[in-house]
Amino acid sequence: MKLFYSPSSPFVRKVMVCAIELGIAGKLDKEATSVGPIDRNQAVIPSNPLAQVPTLITDDGMPLYDSRVICEYLDSIGGNKLFPAAGPARWRTLTEQTAGDGLLDAALLGRYEVTVRPEDKRYEPWRLGQLDKIRTALNQFVTWLPAMGSRVDIGTITIGCALGYLDFRYGDFGWRNGRQGLADWYGNFAKRPSMDQTKPPAG
Amino acid sequence: MKLFYSPSSPFVRKVMVCAIELGIAGKLDKEATSVGPIDRNQAVIPSNPLAQVPTLITDDGMPLYDSRVICEYLDSIGGNKLFPAAGPARWRTLTEQTAGDGLLDAALLGRYEVTVRPEDKRYEPWRLGQLDKIRTALNQFVTWLPAMGSRVDIGTITIGCALGYLDFRYGDFGWRNGRQGLADWYGNFAKRPSMDQTKPPAG
Repeated sequence: MKLFYSPSSPFVRKVMVCAIELGIAGKLDKEATSVGPIDRNQAVIPSNPLAQVPTLITDDGMPLYDSRVICEYLDSIGGNKLFPAAGPARWRTLTEQTAGDGLLDAALLGRYEVTVRPEDKRYEPWRLGQLDKIRTALNQFVTWLPAMGSRVDIGTITIGCALGYLDFRYGDFGWRNGRQGLADWYGNFAKRPSMDQTKPPAG
Repeated sequence: MKLFYSPSSPFVRKVMVCAIELGIAGKLDKEATSVGPIDRNQAVIPSNPLAQVPTLITDDGMPLYDSRVICEYLDSIGGNKLFPAAGPARWRTLTEQTAGDGLLDAALLGRYEVTVRPEDKRYEPWRLGQLDKIRTALNQFVTWLPAMGSRVDIGTITIGCALGYLDFRYGDFGWRNGRQGLADWYGNFAKRPSMDQTKPPAG
């Protein structure tokens, strides 16, 4: 399988963490790909019109995206360990995934505001709205800690990747402040080989 | 079940179309809710930290989001008609859903650019990047027409709602130009009672 890949993308990280947890990472042929919202990567568009990473091409040649679809596909060929079958456990973990993805979408938009726009085109209320979304998502994770426990599934993997992205790109945000329980949960989760092996590059 | 609802949200429309197709729309208690990226709706946050519609509260009191999770949940209680079981048909329709959702995300960002920002804070290359994403998604739909056929599932429903949103908010974009086959497909799909009954309000 071919994976359009970037080591700094938190959504790619979700895919790689799932693949490692499932023991099938070796089946992925990673193709380094850089993408952006303005200079759209033309090499990805024939496979994925959204021009985003991750995009997977299966061995049958079928393009799959986004990370949610790819992770569920990998789970189906890797033993069905990360996506519970239909029922309350599935709806809970899928909603956790949405919250983690939503934090990441806000974090990316907040970052685009200061990386792709000239300084005079930045609008602080927009960036503050994204930061507030990050904050309310973090507070939700805190209330979910008892349910998260030591589970390893698509919900906790997404939340782990979201927190890792804040460490990577939002070091000054101080997400651990006042959230010691969540910091402890992440401290343990980040020790998993799947998380350790997918840490984003420094800088 | 309670649904945080807005008649102009294309993601809410996805949910309502699914519910109508499944014959369970009567079970949804719709709560009119307006949301925005800067003035975040505080009434939604306790249920959904992303403060977005749609958000569903199940009869057991479990909050579910986003539209992908809600639609799959509704399908599970409505007869499993819209989400194929694991296999190529599922991966195809879920990827179609991603493409339709991606078009909508781009359309919303392109619209926020001109609705929530003061004129001097707008950055045309950003808006053009979003429009280009809409364009490449539309071109992908055209290549998918033979596979879409007369299927009614989460993939085609999402694509139908995406095209309906372009008619609603991007009337000048001319998405039908050069895409007669897609226009014909939508013309038929839009006649379904589920689509007709969920048309966004005028203006």
